[in-house]
Amino acid sequence: MSSSSRPSRDVLHNLATQLRIDSVRSTSAAGSGHPTTCLSAADIVAALFFAEMRFDPADPQHPEADRFVLSKGHAAPILYAAWAAAGAFPRDEVLKLRSIGSDLEGHPTPRLPFVDVATGSLGQGLPAAIGIALNARRIESDYRTYALLGDGECAEGSVWEAAEVAAHERLDNLCAIVDVNGLGQSRATQYEHDTDSFVRRFEAFGWWARSIDGHDMGQILAALDEARKVSGRPALIAARTLKGKGLAAIEGKPGWHGKALKKGEETDKAIAELEAQYKDTGFPSQDGRKPGVLTPAIPKPARRRTESAPADFVAEMPAPSWALGDKVATREAFGPGLVALGGMDRRIVALDADVKNSTFSEAFEKFYPDRFIQSFIAEQAMVGVAMGLASRGAIPFPSTFACFLERASDFIRMAGISSLGVKLAGSHAGVSIGEDGPSQMALEDLAMARGVPNCTVLYPSDAVSAYRLVAAAAATPGPVYIRLGRPKTPVIYPSGETFPIGGSKTLRETSSDVVTVVAAGVTLFEALEAHDVLAKENVAIRVIDAYSVQPIDNATLVAAGRATGGRIITVEDHYAHGGLGDAVSEAVWDQAFRVKRLAVREIPRSGQPEELLDRFGISSKAIVAAVRELLA
Amino acid sequence: MSSSSRPSRDVLHNLATQLRIDSVRSTSAAGSGHPTTCLSAADIVAALFFAEMRFDPADPQHPEADRFVLSKGHAAPILYAAWAAAGAFPRDEVLKLRSIGSDLEGHPTPRLPFVDVATGSLGQGLPAAIGIALNARRIESDYRTYALLGDGECAEGSVWEAAEVAAHERLDNLCAIVDVNGLGQSRATQYEHDTDSFVRRFEAFGWWARSIDGHDMGQILAALDEARKVSGRPALIAARTLKGKGLAAIEGKPGWHGKALKKGEETDKAIAELEAQYKDTGFPSQDGRKPGVLTPAIPKPARRRTESAPADFVAEMPAPSWALGDKVATREAFGPGLVALGGMDRRIVALDADVKNSTFSEAFEKFYPDRFIQSFIAEQAMVGVAMGLASRGAIPFPSTFACFLERASDFIRMAGISSLGVKLAGSHAGVSIGEDGPSQMALEDLAMARGVPNCTVLYPSDAVSAYRLVAAAAATPGPVYIRLGRPKTPVIYPSGETFPIGGSKTLRETSSDVVTVVAAGVTLFEALEAHDVLAKENVAIRVIDAYSVQPIDNATLVAAGRATGGRIITVEDHYAHGGLGDAVSEAVWDQAFRVKRLAVREIPRSGQPEELLDRFGISSKAIVAAVRELLA
Repeated sequence: MSSSSRPSRDVLHNLATQLRIDSVRSTSAAGSGHPTTCLSAADIVAALFFAEMRFDPADPQHPEADRFVLSKGHAAPILYAAWAAAGAFPRDEVLKLRSIGSDLEGHPTPRLPFVDVATGSLGQGLPAAIGIALNARRIESDYRTYALLGDGECAEGSVWEAAEVAAHERLDNLCAIVDVNGLGQSRATQYEHDTDSFVRRFEAFGWWARSIDGHDMGQILAALDEARKVSGRPALIAARTLKGKGLAAIEGKPGWHGKALKKGEETDKAIAELEAQYKDTGFPSQDGRKPGVLTPAIPKPARRRTESAPADFVAEMPAPSWALGDKVATREAFGPGLVALGGMDRRIVALDADVKNSTFSEAFEKFYPDRFIQSFIAEQAMVGVAMGLASRGAIPFPSTFACFLERASDFIRMAGISSLGVKLAGSHAGVSIGEDGPSQMALEDLAMARGVPNCTVLYPSDAVSAYRLVAAAAATPGPVYIRLGRPKTPVIYPSGETFPIGGSKTLRETSSDVVTVVAAGVTLFEALEAHDVLAKENVAIRVIDAYSVQPIDNATLVAAGRATGGRIITVEDHYAHGGLGDAVSEAVWDQAFRVKRLAVREIPRSGQPEELLDRFGISSKAIVAAVRELLA
Repeated sequence: MSSSSRPSRDVLHNLATQLRIDSVRSTSAAGSGHPTTCLSAADIVAALFFAEMRFDPADPQHPEADRFVLSKGHAAPILYAAWAAAGAFPRDEVLKLRSIGSDLEGHPTPRLPFVDVATGSLGQGLPAAIGIALNARRIESDYRTYALLGDGECAEGSVWEAAEVAAHERLDNLCAIVDVNGLGQSRATQYEHDTDSFVRRFEAFGWWARSIDGHDMGQILAALDEARKVSGRPALIAARTLKGKGLAAIEGKPGWHGKALKKGEETDKAIAELEAQYKDTGFPSQDGRKPGVLTPAIPKPARRRTESAPADFVAEMPAPSWALGDKVATREAFGPGLVALGGMDRRIVALDADVKNSTFSEAFEKFYPDRFIQSFIAEQAMVGVAMGLASRGAIPFPSTFACFLERASDFIRMAGISSLGVKLAGSHAGVSIGEDGPSQMALEDLAMARGVPNCTVLYPSDAVSAYRLVAAAAATPGPVYIRLGRPKTPVIYPSGETFPIGGSKTLRETSSDVVTVVAAGVTLFEALEAHDVLAKENVAIRVIDAYSVQPIDNATLVAAGRATGGRIITVEDHYAHGGLGDAVSEAVWDQAFRVKRLAVREIPRSGQPEELLDRFGISSKAIVAAVRELLA
């Protein structure tokens, strides 16, 4: 907003006062929540919503609107109060805060139309805001992105991962504000009111930064003006505030974190104290009294551009060129898969954490460098940025070694809560990576991904299925995880084969099968080998490729189990918990089958891949032994 | 080491050259690994091992010895070469690098006696080193701790979480060195050779910092001297180096990350090139030729102090004062449990991430402030510091909300690989926290903890069992996770009850039970209520408290399942995957039982605890319905 068309400081002060009042009212009505952290942020939020940002309260998802991310998600009540004040919904709705029938939850989630990403796990808002700011570049929009952080949350490393990425990307359409109220949940923060410590840190990371009094509307507006003019760098405003500002008995006092005022006298007195702070700006209030609060006209976003129609990824994917029997690692198929998608739709973005030559995402960078984001070795930032991008319509594919995706597991959890279409790919799964040793082996990644109930989990075994499942990931709503392997495996599917989500492939099947073996990834080939060994002894086993681990193909598994005497073996290059064995066990729970799990059951070590498959009990030899055991 | 007794720079140069040669030899023999990152670090490592640190190669775990953490774990070959050069084992052992029969793994693990914590997941060495440095305070030793970091890994947020903690703790017994070789795995790092960017960042975080040429032995020694004299602050040395230093064709060139030289001519030429760099210091080599390398005398650590005998935590725990029927949250029992342990044994340390008033760890701080470490809102640092402490004999209890422990899940994975006795406690598990909403609800934490195969997983339901299991955690080797709840639940066990790891409690049992219900935490009370409802209809169910989720009480579960017609219901305030249902399913896999899982199956929302248990299908009502379904 240009400074000339801005409402007066007194009007903004009154709006801040109204936000304070509504934050107290809503938390008191709920009987829980965080009023005091709302009160410290009220002047900043009022300035952003009513003197800075360009948006349409009636259409909060307008693609050209400025974005606001409340990284300090526990200040949700003031976010709701601000949108109510802007006219998005009636003010008294805030009194439904935290009740099961309302989307005004304890911490913001995208169930609300004006929330892009769920916050409440501290340190996630800034990475997401960076993704949102990068999306402006992708769609060539001049919208700006604002993130409000708590001071305590700046202890989270993800904030500094994000700071690095934003500076590297020279994101001058991003402005972060830290609400330095000096008080954490249980004690003073380590920074207390030293706003300069934030300025020093962010400057050292390459940001423009300045320190202000966060209750001085003039200083807030001036800093926002300056921040808007910064070129080639992201901007940081460290605002000195008081937790509980406006309530003399509470202001700046410890012991008030996450406590609602008591209903009745305590709340009534607080509201009266705040109401007395309204300045007479000539506006009548709703009941006709002066002084009152008038919401100023909010500048609308630019005209909506027409977007190209989305691609039908699965149908339009060009056929890959591998022939049956070619030896290709599934991770090697990931690159060409990404490149093919990138050519179909400009929404496809790839993100890397400095392993692009191992995951083969470098192929995408060669073709589409403007849609390739390098987060360097910062997995939380990579996934957080992807969350922000996904929230604004991009289809991001962050990839790294599967074990290092676990570094971002709390982000992946929050991506699930936000239902964001982040398409994660993790390479180098399992002990089959060999010599690098246990620190590089993902053996709990399926459990992590399956722990997000709305996450689709895919585990291809050959290059064709990997390539096709990359397209399926792009086409499937919500988060998706694709598990990729390091070793080369033979191509077993024709290039035109289809792999529906929730499906499976039965690769070996006779009417005399006595055991069903369910596998995916490298162990599928161990299962096929076990099949051949046992066939020589006239023992027939059914072999199923469970490329879709979540959802899993219940019907096929139940039918196979019934056909093979209720004997099922699962075999996975993963620990025994939360992975394929767990998925199959649950799928057939009511059948009274026996589901034996072959999986890694101890901390592994360095060695050659084949040695390790054998040593940790997931090789063809182990499968043959397990079949014999089940038949004994 | 005092500068006067130090070996000459030429001697140190020759040692560095030997380390380079052995790094090339070992990786070439293995056919994989990271020689070039070893070559950049060789001068720094030679200076640390042979001119700076005080240690005993024959007794690397001496409690008073200086510590070295190789945070850039992929440089493992030079770590092994240094310990070989120091005399810990014969030099030619390094040729067994990465083979299944050797503990010289691709990345260092504590299978080796001179490794405190496994590294290889970047950004974890500095937090661990801080824990090790804090341990020196705990045992009142003057040993110093050194950590060698890669430049690329400084993008990891955990490095900055650690930087904050180290500065806050004024750790002047800690010296971190960043090997700024400018090259990451797939490209130049974002910092390239700008060593000052590291100095600026660490100074902004409160460290003493300086920048040097990492191949100039004089500058390295001078910086170590200066760092040793710094008071009240940790020290950082940013060393400009060349990846592949010493090999002209490779030095400073991209494309050489993680590539061993080819056996034969390529390796032989490289070794000859390095050997030609030996300076004549008058020492003959092993084969009698000059110049040779002589390992200087390494100063030994101080005399070993006598340590007090460890407590028998489980037996000595004083009885708690709760009476049957008292309403106490399990998290409320955690504080008194910690305090009791702290009084028994000085090895007990508590760590917090600014939620001590919610987890009740603040009780410990009141009694033992010198053994209470505040990491502020930095869960990776908290767990990493705990890992370092555990590696040096402390028994650390890091605690926070269970969902935020997931922020550190990659650290917990590595704690498992290191078999470290980190005793994690996570509060506020499940939807039963209520109004705060999904971002604060841990619903995948059991899966995370069970995904560490050597992690003991405990899930108490009442205060007495919680209190007793805190003692069991201290007494149990390796990592332990204790899941704690927010709501108050009635005390159901007498204060003297014992809770062996791997056990369970059968709370309701008759000879006519038709279904077994297995629960833990808040859902145990739902199961007891369902029992009473069904009893009125003359339907008897067995109710088992599975307080030990890993290991789980297989024998009791199998016997109960057999006694109840193979019908088992699990009910947990957790997602359906990787938790209690998974554990029970696997425990009884060969019994052909039906194991029905009641668990949260979608992203939850804010609401009152009882409303949410009901809505997400884990209340007594859901249990009653499931029993009827199984019987139908």
